Amino acid sequence: MDTAAPVTADEVASAASPPRNNEENLSLRGAEGPEAISPPYRGVFPNSTKVHVPGPRGIAVPMREIALSGGEPSLRVYDTSGPEGFDVRNGLPPLRAVWIEPRGVEELPGIAPGESPEAISIPASLLRPPIRGRGPITQLAFARRGEITEEMEFVALREGMPAEFVRSEVARGRAIIPANINHPELEPMAIGRAFHVKINANIGNSAVKSSIEDEVEKLRWAILWGADTVMDLSTGQRIHETRQWIIRNAPVPIGTVPIYQALEKVGGVPEELTWELYRETLIEQAEQGVDYFTVHAGVLLRYIPLTAQRVTGIVSRGGSIMAKWCLAHHQESFLYTRFREICEIMQAYDVSFSLGDGLRPGSIADANDAAQFAELETQGELTKIAWEYDVQVMNEGPGHVPMHLIKENMEKQLAWCGEAPFYTLGPLTTDIAPGYDHITSAIGAAMIGWYGTAMLCYVTPKEHLGLPNRDDVKAGVIAYKIAAHAADLAKGHPRAAVRDGALSKARFDFRWEDQFNLALDPVTARAYHDETLPADGAKLAHFCSMCGPKFCSMRISQDLRAMAEQAAGMAGKAEEFRARGGELYVAPISRV
Amino acid sequence: MDTAAPVTADEVASAASPPRNNEENLSLRGAEGPEAISPPYRGVFPNSTKVHVPGPRGIAVPMREIALSGGEPSLRVYDTSGPEGFDVRNGLPPLRAVWIEPRGVEELPGIAPGESPEAISIPASLLRPPIRGRGPITQLAFARRGEITEEMEFVALREGMPAEFVRSEVARGRAIIPANINHPELEPMAIGRAFHVKINANIGNSAVKSSIEDEVEKLRWAILWGADTVMDLSTGQRIHETRQWIIRNAPVPIGTVPIYQALEKVGGVPEELTWELYRETLIEQAEQGVDYFTVHAGVLLRYIPLTAQRVTGIVSRGGSIMAKWCLAHHQESFLYTRFREICEIMQAYDVSFSLGDGLRPGSIADANDAAQFAELETQGELTKIAWEYDVQVMNEGPGHVPMHLIKENMEKQLAWCGEAPFYTLGPLTTDIAPGYDHITSAIGAAMIGWYGTAMLCYVTPKEHLGLPNRDDVKAGVIAYKIAAHAADLAKGHPRAAVRDGALSKARFDFRWEDQFNLALDPVTARAYHDETLPADGAKLAHFCSMCGPKFCSMRISQDLRAMAEQAAGMAGKAEEFRARGGELYVAPISRV
Repeated sequence: MDTAAPVTADEVASAASPPRNNEENLSLRGAEGPEAISPPYRGVFPNSTKVHVPGPRGIAVPMREIALSGGEPSLRVYDTSGPEGFDVRNGLPPLRAVWIEPRGVEELPGIAPGESPEAISIPASLLRPPIRGRGPITQLAFARRGEITEEMEFVALREGMPAEFVRSEVARGRAIIPANINHPELEPMAIGRAFHVKINANIGNSAVKSSIEDEVEKLRWAILWGADTVMDLSTGQRIHETRQWIIRNAPVPIGTVPIYQALEKVGGVPEELTWELYRETLIEQAEQGVDYFTVHAGVLLRYIPLTAQRVTGIVSRGGSIMAKWCLAHHQESFLYTRFREICEIMQAYDVSFSLGDGLRPGSIADANDAAQFAELETQGELTKIAWEYDVQVMNEGPGHVPMHLIKENMEKQLAWCGEAPFYTLGPLTTDIAPGYDHITSAIGAAMIGWYGTAMLCYVTPKEHLGLPNRDDVKAGVIAYKIAAHAADLAKGHPRAAVRDGALSKARFDFRWEDQFNLALDPVTARAYHDETLPADGAKLAHFCSMCGPKFCSMRISQDLRAMAEQAAGMAGKAEEFRARGGELYVAPISRV
Repeated sequence: MDTAAPVTADEVASAASPPRNNEENLSLRGAEGPEAISPPYRGVFPNSTKVHVPGPRGIAVPMREIALSGGEPSLRVYDTSGPEGFDVRNGLPPLRAVWIEPRGVEELPGIAPGESPEAISIPASLLRPPIRGRGPITQLAFARRGEITEEMEFVALREGMPAEFVRSEVARGRAIIPANINHPELEPMAIGRAFHVKINANIGNSAVKSSIEDEVEKLRWAILWGADTVMDLSTGQRIHETRQWIIRNAPVPIGTVPIYQALEKVGGVPEELTWELYRETLIEQAEQGVDYFTVHAGVLLRYIPLTAQRVTGIVSRGGSIMAKWCLAHHQESFLYTRFREICEIMQAYDVSFSLGDGLRPGSIADANDAAQFAELETQGELTKIAWEYDVQVMNEGPGHVPMHLIKENMEKQLAWCGEAPFYTLGPLTTDIAPGYDHITSAIGAAMIGWYGTAMLCYVTPKEHLGLPNRDDVKAGVIAYKIAAHAADLAKGHPRAAVRDGALSKARFDFRWEDQFNLALDPVTARAYHDETLPADGAKLAHFCSMCGPKFCSMRISQDLRAMAEQAAGMAGKAEEFRARGGELYVAPISRV
């Protein structure tokens, strides 16, 4: 390849193959058209029902209730899937509108559908007049004034914690509730290390691949499996329109990297970026309802030479774009020099900062180096400036980091960034498994979640190789639900161990259906079981094909308990037991 | 299920469906019959060649050499796949025979093919006359005498460490080289925390599922992907015969749990087990060539009541069998009372102990409890007894353990078991993801490997649900190669980071083919890339479908380096750069 000229996007895209789609029957694309079908909640979570936990001020928090057999009480789990039964062409109901209206907001003209050539294809049913706050309307502003918002009440019920505690965590900057006032469809959630560890799923098209339909489907698919926030990282065509479809159908916070759209506006040439264009893009996205912005304001001109000896240079898209701008102009990044102006914009809509880590390591060799930590210190400086403006902040973190260097990232972030929530990409604990980076990174994600990271940005099996499709989104979300839950267990979140206990009890009791239904992915668990034992009777069997009936330790263990009980302390009854044939088949002790 | 009678194995097995087989073209089953085809080494590792590193005394250690492009030197990686081109009906060549013969061994009559009804279907080409040592012939005995065996030389070359260091680690009991003198086909390897973290793959049939062909295929498949040892956990029909096929074709150590076969001999009734029967089984398996035995000698009668309040009781098959025997007879386990006799048998063949953890936790709720740690203390006591007999020992560990409780396992094992190698099953860091337990457990496995565990027993996606097939074996092995490699990186193994560096450099240089070929699973990495960009030209492109050409951070990063170089320290050249168009497409700096 030394002499070959790089091929163009068009050349390779013209040969692009269709995405995998192994679960057509679960597709959003139904007979009524591309966007008419809701995700199949019952199809993927058999025996589950969406319930609403009532709270003060008319608040009702959705949870998924898993019905169990054998007299066991049903189990309620955190639910991110959003309201059911709404047509994506109309968007979700504006849950928060009645909360926001009394807070002092003004309606804006916004971007009229005719102003942008692409906007005209957005249905009127998906357009909302934008608003902005007349005064301080961020969750941080309310929290600091001692006011508990409806969003905080909602979060408190979701997390099983007092509302006043939620308020105090937000007020201290240790948690954020990303909730743009232009995103009334949102079901509020908190990102902070006192709460459940959250996961983010990235979607978005690229110049090479994908469509609006694909991206809306990935959104619905991601939240169905448990994504707590979704980032729309689109860099291809119809960015504004794609985002409109996504936000109006998103019950979860939506994050973006506004520099991507700004770059599209200048034809992909970083040197042509300007503050004015970026500012206009921020306002455009804030008025659409984006809940958090990744801003790579910590990539300073003087840090760029620190990456010169790296194995993989700058691997953040936003970081590399801004580094190129800085070098070309030999000026400090406008994201840094205009940071207070950015804060003023974000304050007016309550858009939260996700301070980007543009210099994160992209390989094991580059982990925890001078460039990375220089930027992290600047993230800390910027965090405190944002707080001056009552703007909520979290900090993005790596990347590729071997296990023994993970903890240092968390410790430095807590110390330098005033305990603002940390939001990490993995980290990947080795570089050698492209195709399996959901696993290399779930290892690092679980660990850093335990150490205190508040949100884990998923990695799909396609990382480094191509744009993820719907199946990859699912694989990434499931791997990260595992990582986040493992972290919750290790942190001792009071609600975490309940589900493990319920599933393990079902396993021990041979309640196979309950074991499947309590799993993160019931359909897959059942399919694996049924691959070798498909008969209905096997769902009652006291064994599976792994060990067969004679070698099932759980069956033997149940026998033992019966023996121990009947032998009354295991004294002197051995003979009697053997005389009876030594094989007792009784109801498991846990139900006796 | 409260009132339903358990169904029988026959009832459910009669409805069993065939296993998945998505890669028929890679199957062992070719036109020449079920066992005539070697695994497709080149098919799964394109651009790799098996090479042999010469050592003293005629030793030649196999490695896999990955050829790279762009002038990069080829990379050699550890190789477990065994000799190529041998017909499984004849077995592998007896590499170690000439090493073992001079050590003082005697030939035994062994079990004649006619003695066991099943043995008669073993081809004569797969039968070897068994031998036993006339004196102390274990690797530990040689190491303690200061003698470096050929096996130690072989290990030293494989690990890139001095042979004398290998000897000293074995002598101290901190490493084992499982190498039965009746397994001359073995390519020796070491299990110890100073060396590469190893992984074990479990195979074996059950009463419900599988055949000899399936198990031999799983063996070949597991070692092709990188399993360092394989345990044959068969509990169904034709156990002896299946094992014979496996051992004669195994270049890796084979482990078993002899109590399984003993239990089959008494019709699956634990109470009927006797020391005499178990002893006979040990000798039978030692003479076949099994390299290590799992012996659950630490499950003592007085520990059984400690499991009474557990959520999942006793989840080890061997542990539950012996617990049932103990309770039924109200006697101490014969594995404990006859432990010195067991040592004498294992010494004669150099079979290593894998002291089982029969009381390991089977759920998060049961982790690190009194039962588990009581047994671990007894494992320590038994370890020291085995060492009196020059028998090599490792200790098995859990199981299901949340992240914050993992380290305590390692610390107690090191302290109580005299630094004998630890060999853990995962551990699984949550119970809630059946169908994905290769991931829940890879998290715990990577962590405990970093803390010092020497070998990680894999878990497949089928764990808790059914017997794994070939695809599940691959998924488990790959997840555990990731965990073991992540642990090697974190421990600072001198050879580990080289592969990460080579792959990341290939990634940064857009040497796509090299990136694929350096991956743990090249074919999958390439397939994921090609899903959206299948054209040959895309293998030279400076982007992929994830970001498209304009947003590729690596491309921009390469531009930056060229800019920085040409701008001579980034001073005053910004104008000049922009005048040239600001877009430099040059060879990456790493090759300049």
